[in-house]
Amino acid sequence: MTRVFNFSAGPAALPEPVLRQAAAEMLDWQGSGMGVMEMSHRGPEFMSIHARALASLRELLAIPENYRVLFMQGGGLAENAIVPMNMLRGRRSADFIETGEWSKKSIAEARKYGGVNVAASGAGSGYTEIPDRDSWRLDPEAAYVQICSNETIGGVEYPFTPEVGDVPLVADMSSSILSRPVDVSRYGLIYGGAQKNIGPAGLTLVIVRDDLLGQALPITPSAFDYSVVAAHDSMYNTPPTYAIYIAGLVFQWLLEQGGLAAMERVNADKAALLYRTLDSSEFYRTRVGKAFRSRMNVTFQLADERLNAAFLAAAQARGLVQLKGHRVVGGMRASLYNAMPIAGVQALVDHLQAFEKEQG
Amino acid sequence: MTRVFNFSAGPAALPEPVLRQAAAEMLDWQGSGMGVMEMSHRGPEFMSIHARALASLRELLAIPENYRVLFMQGGGLAENAIVPMNMLRGRRSADFIETGEWSKKSIAEARKYGGVNVAASGAGSGYTEIPDRDSWRLDPEAAYVQICSNETIGGVEYPFTPEVGDVPLVADMSSSILSRPVDVSRYGLIYGGAQKNIGPAGLTLVIVRDDLLGQALPITPSAFDYSVVAAHDSMYNTPPTYAIYIAGLVFQWLLEQGGLAAMERVNADKAALLYRTLDSSEFYRTRVGKAFRSRMNVTFQLADERLNAAFLAAAQARGLVQLKGHRVVGGMRASLYNAMPIAGVQALVDHLQAFEKEQG
Repeated sequence: MTRVFNFSAGPAALPEPVLRQAAAEMLDWQGSGMGVMEMSHRGPEFMSIHARALASLRELLAIPENYRVLFMQGGGLAENAIVPMNMLRGRRSADFIETGEWSKKSIAEARKYGGVNVAASGAGSGYTEIPDRDSWRLDPEAAYVQICSNETIGGVEYPFTPEVGDVPLVADMSSSILSRPVDVSRYGLIYGGAQKNIGPAGLTLVIVRDDLLGQALPITPSAFDYSVVAAHDSMYNTPPTYAIYIAGLVFQWLLEQGGLAAMERVNADKAALLYRTLDSSEFYRTRVGKAFRSRMNVTFQLADERLNAAFLAAAQARGLVQLKGHRVVGGMRASLYNAMPIAGVQALVDHLQAFEKEQG
Repeated sequence: MTRVFNFSAGPAALPEPVLRQAAAEMLDWQGSGMGVMEMSHRGPEFMSIHARALASLRELLAIPENYRVLFMQGGGLAENAIVPMNMLRGRRSADFIETGEWSKKSIAEARKYGGVNVAASGAGSGYTEIPDRDSWRLDPEAAYVQICSNETIGGVEYPFTPEVGDVPLVADMSSSILSRPVDVSRYGLIYGGAQKNIGPAGLTLVIVRDDLLGQALPITPSAFDYSVVAAHDSMYNTPPTYAIYIAGLVFQWLLEQGGLAAMERVNADKAALLYRTLDSSEFYRTRVGKAFRSRMNVTFQLADERLNAAFLAAAQARGLVQLKGHRVVGGMRASLYNAMPIAGVQALVDHLQAFEKEQG
């Protein structure tokens, strides 16, 4: 068996020790005679898996007691509707900061449920910069202010947590969550699909301040009403049990690595190594403003885009896969989530330099 | 490793060959150097897994070409809202047949989105019978008629497919799908959570006639709008990729067993063996009318309910687990989904007889 270095933007690489444990326990979890996939979500075995995953996540993110952690389904795109359904709370509209494809999707979906005020947009920069906080035209009566902490497609990341006063800050953190410490208390709600830094696709994480619960629109499906989900400890409907189990193993692995402060150092090093290589060459280009470069999704282009196919084929031959950029921005994208080891980034750097030498 | 016989109502036992293959491929699917959980849903590897799962399911159920198969998320409880959102199609109300806990949940949720006409109810029989078709007071103007093909909690199953004229028939088949052949063309829509007969929790199957698409309520989240999901081949949002992979392995296993006609024979034999044993004893009781007994969820009681705990403990000691009935009906429940071998039912029968002898 030869494992590749998988730069997919998500679903994405998982830590090998997690996969090894999952394989070993597939038919028999800890002597129970059942695999995790086969367990009733109400049984003591799965309840313990669920409780441990929750506790590990709370420890990793130092989640304050007045926040509820919900394990849901539907990914970020479903959450784009579920957030306004739950968070409008009788108010007329919400503020959004438009920084790329994912915030655009959030904005479009929110319009179904209430007013939308695009308080700032990165469109003028081609979505290569986060609009300066001083330029945001926030509405003090807004139900919430929503940002996308890291734009997976464009590769633009907030280098700061915006101050928005008493209005709850909502963040789609799908592609940056668990990559660094976060002060959860600065947010009203954090959500994210699991399939980048957490675990398998099909699990959505929601962290919400408890005073914001209980005012969902009447048309909210019960299974997506945060207060219903919270009241049933994420077991109102049958949760995605296996995905929660894998996420729990990932949380455990992160704690063993030293937690999020340690991961941030590794992730900063990985990104710095790759950006440094790109910056030192005329053969490769980057577009994102240096202050806003994503540590998770590094987007870059070949100066001569006619070489794209050859670049990807040579990468594949070296065991470096899923480097093609999203069609909206083109070029290349290397996703460097927690499970990507520095050895993988070094292998990519070696490829960048070797390919330039071969073709240059 | 000793595997138990797991009678859980769901998430439930999976076929051992499926689990063995999943374990073997966990770190490297067919030489790709990636596990299935790590694959981009847009990559050729997962696209082939997805296409094969779809093709196998279409073959198993002989799904006509004018039906779309959607892989969604949220389980049956989410679908209880998503169905009326999509299926009301400008009409005032829908008809429901109330046969137990799951149809009651569907009815309660549907009231959020339109009128509900309970056209017949099994309440008079304590939900031990399916109301006779002649007694249904159907509304010819209804958007659809909804049934629950098998009530997982009560253990009541339709022995017939009701004729409802031109009004589309909608069925929650969560706990009976793939247990026997179904004439899909008799239905407008079939849905079900995967965690009984299909695969892991977190995957929802929807089979819908294509002329019913495209009239979702404006407040329908895009990720749950059947026409959006269909237009994107279930990849509008990131699908629960690993659950689809496991479901595909289950579909393949079912085809190797001889398909649904063969499964129906095995399932009928399994249920008959268990009901025969229960009927032949005064020590055990059953409540469901014989014509409506579920083949999937066999509910029964000990005549002396003070022995319940001893019964369950002795069963556990024999490697027979998850036999406790749902709190709503009490007693015992043995779920005999496709993955439960006849040997498991025989072991349960042996336990029933041995326990009676010990205690009787």
